[in-house]
Amino acid sequence: MALVASIEDVARQAGVSIATVSRALRGLPDVAAATRDRVLSAASDLNYVASPFAARLASGRTTTVGLVVPFVNRWFFAEVIATVETALRRAGFDLLLYNLGDEQGRTRFFDVMPMRKRVDGVLIASLVLDEAEFSALTELNRPVGLLGLVREGFLSAAIDDIASARAAVDHLVALGHRRIGLIGGDTDDPMRFTPPLRRRDGYRDALEAAGVELEPDLEQLGYFTVEGGGDAARRLLARSDPPTAIFAESDEMAYGVLREMRHLGLRAPDDVAVIGFDDQPFADLMDLTTVRQPVADQALDITTRLLAVISETEDGLMRDPAVVLPTELVLRASTEGTGPRQ
Amino acid sequence: MALVASIEDVARQAGVSIATVSRALRGLPDVAAATRDRVLSAASDLNYVASPFAARLASGRTTTVGLVVPFVNRWFFAEVIATVETALRRAGFDLLLYNLGDEQGRTRFFDVMPMRKRVDGVLIASLVLDEAEFSALTELNRPVGLLGLVREGFLSAAIDDIASARAAVDHLVALGHRRIGLIGGDTDDPMRFTPPLRRRDGYRDALEAAGVELEPDLEQLGYFTVEGGGDAARRLLARSDPPTAIFAESDEMAYGVLREMRHLGLRAPDDVAVIGFDDQPFADLMDLTTVRQPVADQALDITTRLLAVISETEDGLMRDPAVVLPTELVLRASTEGTGPRQ
Repeated sequence: MALVASIEDVARQAGVSIATVSRALRGLPDVAAATRDRVLSAASDLNYVASPFAARLASGRTTTVGLVVPFVNRWFFAEVIATVETALRRAGFDLLLYNLGDEQGRTRFFDVMPMRKRVDGVLIASLVLDEAEFSALTELNRPVGLLGLVREGFLSAAIDDIASARAAVDHLVALGHRRIGLIGGDTDDPMRFTPPLRRRDGYRDALEAAGVELEPDLEQLGYFTVEGGGDAARRLLARSDPPTAIFAESDEMAYGVLREMRHLGLRAPDDVAVIGFDDQPFADLMDLTTVRQPVADQALDITTRLLAVISETEDGLMRDPAVVLPTELVLRASTEGTGPRQ
Repeated sequence: MALVASIEDVARQAGVSIATVSRALRGLPDVAAATRDRVLSAASDLNYVASPFAARLASGRTTTVGLVVPFVNRWFFAEVIATVETALRRAGFDLLLYNLGDEQGRTRFFDVMPMRKRVDGVLIASLVLDEAEFSALTELNRPVGLLGLVREGFLSAAIDDIASARAAVDHLVALGHRRIGLIGGDTDDPMRFTPPLRRRDGYRDALEAAGVELEPDLEQLGYFTVEGGGDAARRLLARSDPPTAIFAESDEMAYGVLREMRHLGLRAPDDVAVIGFDDQPFADLMDLTTVRQPVADQALDITTRLLAVISETEDGLMRDPAVVLPTELVLRASTEGTGPRQ
């Protein structure tokens, strides 16, 4: 089994001091070109990789970014992780992934802050953070990037959830619907991720603008899962005056609605029009009208700007830290060409 | 902004030496109980977190595991990442996630081996590794766990892909099908993940056992995506003698088959019976017969055993390092109750 080469091995092979190896590998100026070549050649021969700690000693860097997510195996977050990992890898950075998992995990994470001393920067995806959590982040004394939420003084990339949800419900209103159900997330959920609050606001704005009185019973919790969406649809469709259209705050909940409708012998859009949110690949498969959000674009945008701050390559970055990316209503068969059944 | 406490701060506050702090925090025996309490109390007051490097100096540990995957945003791998992250977090370990991304990324990863000096152990998910790659892993001199593949002398958790695929095709044969299409992955793909080779073998075994001659044209590449599955189905169904049944090596490819069939005005199982592999949540939504594999169980099993080796808590672990978990054929409407149309 080969031994792992140390900086001492490189120094010995190149015939220079350890300090010179360190300076040469870091590209600092006062190393003669011939010396630098000798060091690089020795490092290459020995397959030497600077240890994270040595790199930190030398540059204060860990070449690692921490990514904090509330869920891993949901489409949105899987896309975010994939995009962030790729962008980091291309820049020579490693990804430390932290999934909060549940309320207890969340509390422990912000108490213990395991990222401390391990990362050069932090990305937070779609979490509503309270003041104590923002303080814990700030005390890391590392650049922070927010994905899917906006806060004064922080880098962020997000969509406008309110306007996007409103566009979806406006579309249903334009088709003639007035009894429109909402299936969303729990705004009191201890995991507090951002979409539920804001997409509900967009739904309410659209109805109010159309002069439709809000009916609290038409707003049901679907918990951002297929099962939850199906259960919420069952409750809505069992009413004596069921909605003629349903806006689900995620595609997965909308799939649950479509499945429940199939079980009840109902069809979209003839019986109930359905709109989702995300435009996952399956939305096309399910012929689901939905709000397309650019997940990879948001993730790439915030990762790129965080890396620029870490590397101090662009000093103007902080001038416009909050980037909002556009969404698009994608029309498919689940709403197309019909109004409410009279 | 609060400063991050150092081990020196803890030593000063507890009135002991740095070596004593280190010994007390590591739970070594020759520290008086009162001294240990004083150190723990000081560490707690100062919110001290041992730096990874200090921890390594002290114990040789990084409390980090590297997870290497060929893809992040596919259902199987998202489930694996979620499960591994949760199991590691509960054990106080961090997750460094490495996505190989593409052939270039894969080559660079095994050349540079960025995990070096950063992890206590490594998990490899569903990658066919060549000898050079196994050597690179072995030279890390850290415990390695394999998920979805088996190799002599390595810890592993996997399913029997050959037997599972065979059971799926046996089911089609039992329904009377003889012209059965296969949609799989590229066995020459530079990313070489494990299922394509072995599931194809299971398909061929089943046909040979049934006395059906293999037709190479009935085996099509679907690249483990919805799109690829749809394209492969189009090629199969455009034949003068199209198959009466299709086995897709993943649910996602099977969804593409069902979508393409819908576009062609064909129905499952009346026109073509369809079976997938995985039993993703959407398989139920799509009424797809499929092979259910226990993804979370495999991931939890291998993570638990890797952590046991890292922690040296169970010395019998290496005696039976290769665990094979069962799969189950889940029958749904896409094959149910019909034979081939004559």
